[in-house]
Amino acid sequence: MLELVDLDRKLPKETYEKVFPDLETRLGDCQRAIRTAGVPVVMVFEGWDAAGKGTTINHVAQALDPRGFKVHPTVAATEAERARPWMWRFWNALPAAGNFAIFDRSWYGRVLRDRIEELVTESQWRQAYEEIAQFERQLTDSGVVLVKFWLHISRGEQRCRFKGIQRDPATAWRVGKQERKQHKKYKEWLVAVEEMLQRTDRPNAAWTIVEATQERFVRVKVVETILRAVEAELHRRSEEPKPVRQPMAAVPVGRPGQTTILDRVDLTRSLSREEYEEQLAALEERLFQLEHRLYTARIPAVIVYEGWDAAGKGGNIRRLTRGLDPRGYEVIPVGVPTAEELAHHYLWRFWRQTPKAGHIAIFDRSWYGRVLVERVEGLCTEAEWRRAFTEINEFEHQLVEFGTVIAKFWLHIDQEEQLRRFQDRQGNAHKQWKITEEDWRNREKWGQYSVAVVEMLERTSTTYAPWTILEANCKLYARVKALRTVADALERALNRA
Amino acid sequence: MLELVDLDRKLPKETYEKVFPDLETRLGDCQRAIRTAGVPVVMVFEGWDAAGKGTTINHVAQALDPRGFKVHPTVAATEAERARPWMWRFWNALPAAGNFAIFDRSWYGRVLRDRIEELVTESQWRQAYEEIAQFERQLTDSGVVLVKFWLHISRGEQRCRFKGIQRDPATAWRVGKQERKQHKKYKEWLVAVEEMLQRTDRPNAAWTIVEATQERFVRVKVVETILRAVEAELHRRSEEPKPVRQPMAAVPVGRPGQTTILDRVDLTRSLSREEYEEQLAALEERLFQLEHRLYTARIPAVIVYEGWDAAGKGGNIRRLTRGLDPRGYEVIPVGVPTAEELAHHYLWRFWRQTPKAGHIAIFDRSWYGRVLVERVEGLCTEAEWRRAFTEINEFEHQLVEFGTVIAKFWLHIDQEEQLRRFQDRQGNAHKQWKITEEDWRNREKWGQYSVAVVEMLERTSTTYAPWTILEANCKLYARVKALRTVADALERALNRA
Repeated sequence: MLELVDLDRKLPKETYEKVFPDLETRLGDCQRAIRTAGVPVVMVFEGWDAAGKGTTINHVAQALDPRGFKVHPTVAATEAERARPWMWRFWNALPAAGNFAIFDRSWYGRVLRDRIEELVTESQWRQAYEEIAQFERQLTDSGVVLVKFWLHISRGEQRCRFKGIQRDPATAWRVGKQERKQHKKYKEWLVAVEEMLQRTDRPNAAWTIVEATQERFVRVKVVETILRAVEAELHRRSEEPKPVRQPMAAVPVGRPGQTTILDRVDLTRSLSREEYEEQLAALEERLFQLEHRLYTARIPAVIVYEGWDAAGKGGNIRRLTRGLDPRGYEVIPVGVPTAEELAHHYLWRFWRQTPKAGHIAIFDRSWYGRVLVERVEGLCTEAEWRRAFTEINEFEHQLVEFGTVIAKFWLHIDQEEQLRRFQDRQGNAHKQWKITEEDWRNREKWGQYSVAVVEMLERTSTTYAPWTILEANCKLYARVKALRTVADALERALNRA
Repeated sequence: MLELVDLDRKLPKETYEKVFPDLETRLGDCQRAIRTAGVPVVMVFEGWDAAGKGTTINHVAQALDPRGFKVHPTVAATEAERARPWMWRFWNALPAAGNFAIFDRSWYGRVLRDRIEELVTESQWRQAYEEIAQFERQLTDSGVVLVKFWLHISRGEQRCRFKGIQRDPATAWRVGKQERKQHKKYKEWLVAVEEMLQRTDRPNAAWTIVEATQERFVRVKVVETILRAVEAELHRRSEEPKPVRQPMAAVPVGRPGQTTILDRVDLTRSLSREEYEEQLAALEERLFQLEHRLYTARIPAVIVYEGWDAAGKGGNIRRLTRGLDPRGYEVIPVGVPTAEELAHHYLWRFWRQTPKAGHIAIFDRSWYGRVLVERVEGLCTEAEWRRAFTEINEFEHQLVEFGTVIAKFWLHIDQEEQLRRFQDRQGNAHKQWKITEEDWRNREKWGQYSVAVVEMLERTSTTYAPWTILEANCKLYARVKALRTVADALERALNRA
């Protein structure tokens, strides 16, 4: 594949000077067009050391308005990055709608240098291929334009360039041990690069191999490729019918003959105040111990709370955290997304909040909003929420691969219990703020939500991240069960570690 | 001072049980009140190791809605934090209006542990006192409620608690070398703590010493103190007349007899295309070398571009960056603040963008917006923009203390030249997007802007961060002068290093 690349391709100066200024203008126009259309664009520059990635990126950047792009040099991972799943740093760097993100090296490092230098195990880089495929698919599915370049030069050309860099005292430090190693292992790299190109070339995430011997040629080819990709997406959007977003049609509650997993929940389960106090105290002590062991073992944990309005999420979370050291956990309340969050992939805000090694993140509502409220209220398209089941499973799988413990709770109550609690809230001056018009509106959609909840539980309860339904008509019972479930999950992880 | 603290203060169980639930409810109410009033609250918990900071914070947190607070444990600085001025991490952690930020240890580490363990030089911790004073004043001036606690226990009590912690295998690791060292040097610490309390106790940023022998007593005192501080601020706001924000009155352009620094700018300065090409090429080469040396020397640089509309900021920045390696610089365009930015201190968004060691940040417009557009258009109060001169000088001084090189440009043109450029933009299809109604409106306020610009230049041109006026009627001249000024500034810094 790569040996067939014609590395002698060049562009005469006159042609370049005739063609390039026009390309630059078009790139500027194109930037304004993606801004208007709200298209995010991700460019990946990979290539041999000294192939000219930096210079090329600078040339692209020169033609752009700095208000709309950001360059992300992928250097060695920082402490903060090492303490999270490896894809975290790239999710963090994704552009908002209407912006460019330019990656100078990228997520491909794991299947290239890290692999060759044996900085990752074979199972890690093999796994990385899958996670890259998931990542890129999730991006392009959501409308991101993804352009990937491999800047290719021959071994001889690389040697020649290294010499040039070393001659200049200001740049000599750039040819270090790493660069010399790559040059020495050029053939081994070549095999890895070919494998990478083959395994990650997809219709929506295609590689462009750039014959990088001559700068002029590189610039023109790179800018033309970007323009083609962006213009194709803009054209596609203009042709495509407007996406339909509509609320779920009404569903009668309790259709006869159809019992679901929710109907089988035994809501009579309860605990006396006495049993509760006793068990709670023991569990608090156990969790305190586990939190410290988790910290020492550098295992992260994610706890997700979902449930009906007034099912008791807040009180449950408070009991879970009461005995913990606040330096070790964080409660993350999830509300209506901000404008910045809406301008990104819906998983973006959750990726940013994944806990670092040794810490516990407790989500009060979560990414499951996509298949609950967003589905029921028609805040996303059907294609979007359908796709979300897979995307969420992939997301959680990546967390688990990193060693994260996941516990997910659905707090279940019945309609009568909810009504009692709503009325209680309205009758109590200190609780009135807890109940809003929206709660009453949601209550009317009990049937639709039931359908969404059941499908969510069925499709996203996985061996690595199972759901636990909490029988929450008795709050005391639900709290003890939640604390015990978390404690058991943490203990299992610690015993495995 | 501290030897007079009565460490035997206790609260009987019955009193506590009668008082505390009510305090918790009031804290919840108070949280909703600050949310409505848009008051940000910062709480600082300092104290002896094992004095119970974590437990206390957890109790405060239990009474709060997780949607409105965040706990910031101040552990050893990360790589990213070490690569910025030391206050960077605390600015980053500031709460938005209506939220609480709870610091478990804080910026006081520098004048306590770091000082005692000799992790900072004497000049660093002395400087830290000034910077802490500036920081806290800037916060409280902007309406932040700041509550600071010192949790105090005796040496004997500390010994006793360490023993308890060490007996439990889950917590034993928490008494490490650092904690043992503090215990051994209790007296030395005592001196430093007293000095800290005395030097940083201000009316708006008062310390509360908490007798921390008994948990119940601590909880009640801490919550009562928070409530008092917040309620005082809410009361103050309700009494205070609404702040007046109004645009600057019209100022005739070119008042006779009054020549300003702007009138003395020699706008006839120019360069021929030939001189320009030659000098530019040499400067580009020089900057390329300097960027690399800067990176190796880990010196950060901040370049600020301000100037009249159409004065040529964009083109100037493009020439400055054309020859640079994109991994080493970033252009930061500053536009209208987002909702999140508006909910913070106006310097917050700029603090977050300070470059890390070895990198160059180029600001296309900047924090000077406070004393330019915000002043002229009446987007802030007179007290706010007047205060800003000092705040900005302090901000830049903190950057320079860290070793940052600062260059600030005012791109100056005259009204005729601006008109010519506006008309040119409107007549050119590829440039039309550059000119908006707002540009024409700004133009009508030339007189007001002139007053604001002159005052800005006079008040914020400091020895450590001087302004350079670029004579920009000839774009070529302005570009060469900018590049040369930057190169000279970088070179001086490198020669000093």
